[in-house]
Amino acid sequence: MNTGSWENNVRKVVPYVPGEQPKFSNVIKLNTNENPYPPSPSVRKVLDEYNCADMRLYPDPDASVLVNAIAERYGVKSSQVFVGVGSDDVLSVAFLTFFNSDKPVLFPDITYSFYDVWADVYRIPYIQKPLDSDFRINPDDYKCENGGIIFPNPNAPTGCEESLEMIEDIVKSNPGSVVIIDEAYVDFGAESALSLTEKYENLLVVQTFSKSRSMAGMRIGYAIGNEKLIKYMNDVKFSINSYTMTPLTILCGAAGIKDEEYFVRTVNKITETREYSKKRLAELGFTFPDSKSNFIFASHKSVPASEIFTALKERKIYVRYWNKEKINNHLRISVGTREEMDELFGALEGILK
Amino acid sequence: MNTGSWENNVRKVVPYVPGEQPKFSNVIKLNTNENPYPPSPSVRKVLDEYNCADMRLYPDPDASVLVNAIAERYGVKSSQVFVGVGSDDVLSVAFLTFFNSDKPVLFPDITYSFYDVWADVYRIPYIQKPLDSDFRINPDDYKCENGGIIFPNPNAPTGCEESLEMIEDIVKSNPGSVVIIDEAYVDFGAESALSLTEKYENLLVVQTFSKSRSMAGMRIGYAIGNEKLIKYMNDVKFSINSYTMTPLTILCGAAGIKDEEYFVRTVNKITETREYSKKRLAELGFTFPDSKSNFIFASHKSVPASEIFTALKERKIYVRYWNKEKINNHLRISVGTREEMDELFGALEGILK
Repeated sequence: MNTGSWENNVRKVVPYVPGEQPKFSNVIKLNTNENPYPPSPSVRKVLDEYNCADMRLYPDPDASVLVNAIAERYGVKSSQVFVGVGSDDVLSVAFLTFFNSDKPVLFPDITYSFYDVWADVYRIPYIQKPLDSDFRINPDDYKCENGGIIFPNPNAPTGCEESLEMIEDIVKSNPGSVVIIDEAYVDFGAESALSLTEKYENLLVVQTFSKSRSMAGMRIGYAIGNEKLIKYMNDVKFSINSYTMTPLTILCGAAGIKDEEYFVRTVNKITETREYSKKRLAELGFTFPDSKSNFIFASHKSVPASEIFTALKERKIYVRYWNKEKINNHLRISVGTREEMDELFGALEGILK
Repeated sequence: MNTGSWENNVRKVVPYVPGEQPKFSNVIKLNTNENPYPPSPSVRKVLDEYNCADMRLYPDPDASVLVNAIAERYGVKSSQVFVGVGSDDVLSVAFLTFFNSDKPVLFPDITYSFYDVWADVYRIPYIQKPLDSDFRINPDDYKCENGGIIFPNPNAPTGCEESLEMIEDIVKSNPGSVVIIDEAYVDFGAESALSLTEKYENLLVVQTFSKSRSMAGMRIGYAIGNEKLIKYMNDVKFSINSYTMTPLTILCGAAGIKDEEYFVRTVNKITETREYSKKRLAELGFTFPDSKSNFIFASHKSVPASEIFTALKERKIYVRYWNKEKINNHLRISVGTREEMDELFGALEGILK
């Protein structure tokens, strides 16, 4: 007899809370950094031509069609590309694979709020390094003994871009650790660290189809790095789930990434709307660090962020707010269409007057 | 400066090796227990009606449409259903959630060969309990101190069904552990332990769309248990990846499980072909434990399994073979269509003569 309570053996965790996904329509949804434009029209063709009888078969465990399309887009070998169920899956596998040490993993105190959750669930020690008062990273914070380093560039939820020189300085100072640059938002105007992966085998760059490629629903993320890093990640992935990507995901993703013209056009529309939005927000009395992403992290000179958040929600405009030290007077506002942003500014005028 | 090699911090693992997915056609594929029939025709309608513009949005993190459809099918509450990316994802999350103890997890020595891989990747101690010479489980092996118990019913790759009384005996003897019954193959004629989940809060039943529901490609698995178990699993899931299921997966899965008539009809065809195949295999000089699944675990009286495996592969007929102690003279043969099985038997006649 094995007595006691099964609950004693449960891994108890405090999960990540994703941004709200309201289930009713007529909402202006600027809370999860989704792309306001649909994906490339080529994905419709994929669904039309797909033979549903093939669903009975397991998918390609290597997701080769998708991996090859990503490799071709970035001019790397397929063996340098890892794909997963959104960049969250990719990052989770990377945490498990590379941060397997008793030394603490380092990341900023203000950053993507999933990092500490993965560290907790996988029992990885970590230290959060404070950003400075301009929400910037101090590279010297990342030159101590550590079990790994991760930060987004541009950072979330601030939108700040760090220079490639600074990133190289950190990567070069840490041959004993893998450094992960989470580039979920890089396509909106920041410089990618991909060029450095040739030079530094401890650098992993992670990107996603969820933002610039309008496919948050299809759950496609990828990592690019040297072949050894990718091999280690695949070993862990194949120790968890052999088949993570459905054929529809593989085929839609490959079709999407091949439509470069559409990608450039929609990304340009978003960055134009972002620059316009910066002007309008400044006129309304907001300040914000300069954003190179598809969101703006804004604070109002007189009205508390929490009040604006609630007032916008009453008007069915969703933005993101964290009641968390250092950022509890900021709103993260995703860049929608020009029309959506004008509705937001109209609402803000009413709220702030 | 953080010196040394980043490779010292890597989690090194020996991954699971899935059955071969040949990339050329004209193959008779009886090696991964796929369903020979396409999924319910209702999934085609889902793809036709899906609005691709919605791919830009994150999916429902709770996959409610799918969870509710599964709950309705089994007459349980939605809060008793957990869904994941195939039953491999569900089982992986269950290992991480429930087997969080220094005591060893128990499972048979001959069983689904992913169990020890999950235990290794998550650093969970385990003991493999030998099946008896008829490939049956001895319930007394599972009454010692342990950190959890898992086995499939019917077992893989043997196809043997254990009785509900025996399962209840094990569950009742282990209030200190979660007992997971992996029912990937249960729909082909075995009795499910679902009825026991009402009575025992430490029992989790896992099933899949990959076999009886013809959707291996869509990667849908689910667990049913009491609300506390499911809540703990969701906490871990939301600590790894908020959004694991695409809208296409959610909608196709829900449409598929609602087509009960199609499900019953195709499952019946497979079990009929299985019974026919048992007769034919016996005539050819094979012996096998009685299978309640969609495969037969067969050994020939005179010709070694490895030889038959290679000879079949040369004829583009794929079955599964493990070069592993105790089972290295067996082949696991998935039940295909009647026509596919007749081609197999024709080939075997040639090989064995």
